[in-house]
Amino acid sequence: MSQQTEQAYLASYNIKDYDTCLTTVDSVLFTVLNGELYTLLVRRANHPYLAYWGLPGGFIDVQRDVDLTACANRHLAEKTGIIPPYLEQVCSTGSKTRDPRGWSTTVTYYALMAHIQCTTDIDSVDDVQWLPATQALQMELAFDHKQMIEQALERLKQKALYSLVPVYALPETFTLSELQQLHEVILGKSIQSKSFRRRIELANVLEETGELSTQKGKGKRPALYRVKTGAADYRFMRNLEH
Amino acid sequence: MSQQTEQAYLASYNIKDYDTCLTTVDSVLFTVLNGELYTLLVRRANHPYLAYWGLPGGFIDVQRDVDLTACANRHLAEKTGIIPPYLEQVCSTGSKTRDPRGWSTTVTYYALMAHIQCTTDIDSVDDVQWLPATQALQMELAFDHKQMIEQALERLKQKALYSLVPVYALPETFTLSELQQLHEVILGKSIQSKSFRRRIELANVLEETGELSTQKGKGKRPALYRVKTGAADYRFMRNLEH
Repeated sequence: MSQQTEQAYLASYNIKDYDTCLTTVDSVLFTVLNGELYTLLVRRANHPYLAYWGLPGGFIDVQRDVDLTACANRHLAEKTGIIPPYLEQVCSTGSKTRDPRGWSTTVTYYALMAHIQCTTDIDSVDDVQWLPATQALQMELAFDHKQMIEQALERLKQKALYSLVPVYALPETFTLSELQQLHEVILGKSIQSKSFRRRIELANVLEETGELSTQKGKGKRPALYRVKTGAADYRFMRNLEH
Repeated sequence: MSQQTEQAYLASYNIKDYDTCLTTVDSVLFTVLNGELYTLLVRRANHPYLAYWGLPGGFIDVQRDVDLTACANRHLAEKTGIIPPYLEQVCSTGSKTRDPRGWSTTVTYYALMAHIQCTTDIDSVDDVQWLPATQALQMELAFDHKQMIEQALERLKQKALYSLVPVYALPETFTLSELQQLHEVILGKSIQSKSFRRRIELANVLEETGELSTQKGKGKRPALYRVKTGAADYRFMRNLEH
């Protein structure tokens, strides 16, 4: 056992005396646009994978980032101008080979935001774009980012089965049909409208705004809703598919 | 954009030119002993938190570890002599303050193994011990390891609701009562025996060994079972509590 005091040990500790690994935080940011699920890609301005499209993210800034969540949000805000209303850690991936610079670990998050929240910031640059998630998965992306989009999609799909988390990809106000359609897009199948609305009533995490949607359809203009605080934590008693 | 070739960039890249963070992998290893859930603690031989008990784990060895799983297994095998039959990533925790040496990220796993698989290795040393999980949570542990045990317990509890993953904490052969009792211990409540056995039949991931348990009880000696390959991936159609 060390005979040194902890104070002396810490004073002499220098991380550069050790072989460390690269540690990054990458996020899969989703939104919904015209009834389709989109994800945000960023064109890399540096080696490795120069000019490849990949996920918004990067190194932990040991001075500026307080924790992993702050790091994820900082990288997302740099690209979109805002901090997304929903962020959740998916998993970490680390290996000797995933980055040509050396042993690398990345912590993957997924985030949700309304498309309208960040159009201005993104339309003005050519190195950030929203793409349909299905299209992003067809591309040759930087590092193992394709696998991370798949993992994030799988997690979002699970969440869509037992929670109302997808609501954070909608604009501030939305109709119940828009929310149902979003769940259907994520799950890749239709949901019984009556059962979905009963679940929403039971959940009691949405509230009517008192306004009606301007969208035209058959019959009455539908009511607009917004999310109440705490909606992210609500869980259905049973999964949607059962 | 960089004008350098990727080859030149990589040749000149040196991670020590950057401020990096500490990256570790820590595991919460569970087993069952006398109907109670136990977790493995290791006494720290170095600063910081010298002589505190904490989780088996530590730094990624950029030479020896191929990936995060290999790193978790290496640290577990160093303490128990074996690689546990079940290992699952829980989450990552990283912040400026969790380690007095500097910005630190740790990837937490939980693992399951039979108590009998590693008694010899552990009984012979005084810096490794199995403790009831409830007792470990009462101790002042190194770093934020207490929080990690809580997170791992929560994940194991979820798994006990919809899978037979807890079976990996039992010896190679076991009775159905022992498995049910283990699920009950993890969930902290009793389960309907009839319904649990019907689920096991449906799952078809256990097989009879043809042997009978030597344990005494009322009536017949119960049959011994073992796990089939792929049992870890099986999911109940509905959670146990519903």
